[in-house]
Amino acid sequence: MPLQMQADELLGFLEEVFPQVAGDFAIDRLEDMKIDLRLKVAERHLRPGSTVSGPSMFALADCAVYMIVLAMIGRQALAVTTNCSIDFMRKPEADRDLIASCRLLKLGRVLAVGDVLIRSEGAATPVARASLTYSIPPRA
Amino acid sequence: MPLQMQADELLGFLEEVFPQVAGDFAIDRLEDMKIDLRLKVAERHLRPGSTVSGPSMFALADCAVYMIVLAMIGRQALAVTTNCSIDFMRKPEADRDLIASCRLLKLGRVLAVGDVLIRSEGAATPVARASLTYSIPPRA
Amino acid sequence: MPLQMQADELLGFLEEVFPQVAGDFAIDRLEDMKIDLRLKVAERHLRPGSTVSGPSMFALADCAVYMIVLAMIGRQALAVTTNCSIDFMRKPEADRDLIASCRLLKLGRVLAVGDVLIRSEGAATPVARASLTYSIPPRA
Amino acid sequence: MPLQMQADELLGFLEEVFPQVAGDFAIDRLEDMKIDLRLKVAERHLRPGSTVSGPSMFALADCAVYMIVLAMIGRQALAVTTNCSIDFMRKPEADRDLIASCRLLKLGRVLAVGDVLIRSEGAATPVARASLTYSIPPRA
Repeated sequence: MPLQMQADELLGFLEEVFPQVAGDFAIDRLEDMKIDLRLKVAERHLRPGSTVSGPSMFALADCAVYMIVLAMIGRQALAVTTNCSIDFMRKPEADRDLIASCRLLKLGRVLAVGDVLIRSEGAATPVARASLTYSIPPRA
Repeated sequence: MPLQMQADELLGFLEEVFPQVAGDFAIDRLEDMKIDLRLKVAERHLRPGSTVSGPSMFALADCAVYMIVLAMIGRQALAVTTNCSIDFMRKPEADRDLIASCRLLKLGRVLAVGDVLIRSEGAATPVARASLTYSIPPRA
Repeated sequence: MPLQMQADELLGFLEEVFPQVAGDFAIDRLEDMKIDLRLKVAERHLRPGSTVSGPSMFALADCAVYMIVLAMIGRQALAVTTNCSIDFMRKPEADRDLIASCRLLKLGRVLAVGDVLIRSEGAATPVARASLTYSIPPRA
Repeated sequence: MPLQMQADELLGFLEEVFPQVAGDFAIDRLEDMKIDLRLKVAERHLRPGSTVSGPSMFALADCAVYMIVLAMIGRQALAVTTNCSIDFMRKPEADRDLIASCRLLKLGRVLAVGDVLIRSEGAATPVARASLTYSIPPRA
């Protein structure tokens, strides 16, 4: 199945529907059922102790699955997260971007499931792991 | 077991350790093993379609469990989230605060588990459900 | 919304579709959106150290949500579990039945979400907590 | 870090501590932080509609993480599951074994986190995905 949207188009769409956060993200890699999404870590993502906040990592994982679903099925801005399970395993480094490596494990008619490993850029071990389910609205 | 910290003290501590977000929250109720935490919904928590963002709801659930753990064991700023599972069930209303009703189901020596129901203020049905595990550091 | 199936009918249906496990369970209470389901703990549910096995507790939580969904929507044997998150918090006692207290938090057109607290009979503190999502097939 | 236990030793230990289920499993591959565990699917694992039951898949995922933790740290029979999140994505085939591919993402002093993909033997797409946390008891 070919990608329905390319990286530039995805980021443009994100800018349109989620203008508050679109600038936080960059696409490092995009291919069939897979995306690497970067969180450009800035002051507002940090917590005391110089680490990236949990909600920022949640947002990164959530956005990665959203974007690969979108890339596969096209502009369905109404796809919504129904479930997320996330494990925080190590403390991210505050002065490095985070990279979410996401693969879509299922892309069904009504549900999509993706999993995500988040790493500090350049690090081998993951700081967090997440899996998310998206509900896909019926096509008009 | 008596509360180790009262509402005012908790909010003061939050202001100290998480100054970026402390102003977002208010404590509606605090008792043994239970807290009702309010997200004072503002423009920055919203998504297009006039709904509260997923990361904002995650942050509310996370903060509710953090604060009741803190209230029970005292100033252990290093308690960290290790796992969260969250179900998004309905669309919150954009013009109402969200209330997280949290109860601590386990408060062990190294792990605490809490669950959370999130509702739009005044609504009967929950918009989200979450359960979180916190790891409690050994006391110095 | 009135119950579509009563306790006797539910157990009869379980016997029909899941004959291997139907005998493990009894319904202690059934009402609108709520069920208390009992696991009649037997040798086959135990683990060394005289505790009930994790898979037995998973099966109990899963079955509780399945049965309350069924009670609410009627004979839809094809409703399937899509997600479960479960926290094991304490060791159950081997010589007591387990009671799962389940409430349905959402009963939508395509998804149902329930949460479950599992206790050893007569105990106040829960041994496990679970939340499950069921996918509901379109009606023929 | 070298493996503390090899496949034969692991299965022998499982036979000792979980005699009821040890015969259900075989180790297809075992290496540093990774295991492929096979569920030898039999009548007792099936559900009507000729599919493998959810509790059987849960047990497979749980056992895979347990065994790789054991292989890494040695005989700590008391390591216990504290959390599992599992997504059921497709219907397994009833007449094929299931293979759980498990990697340990974190092996800390008190917590270990593993994730698991379950496939019907010979199939490319996974039927389920799980992540589990184990609590590791202090060494005597």
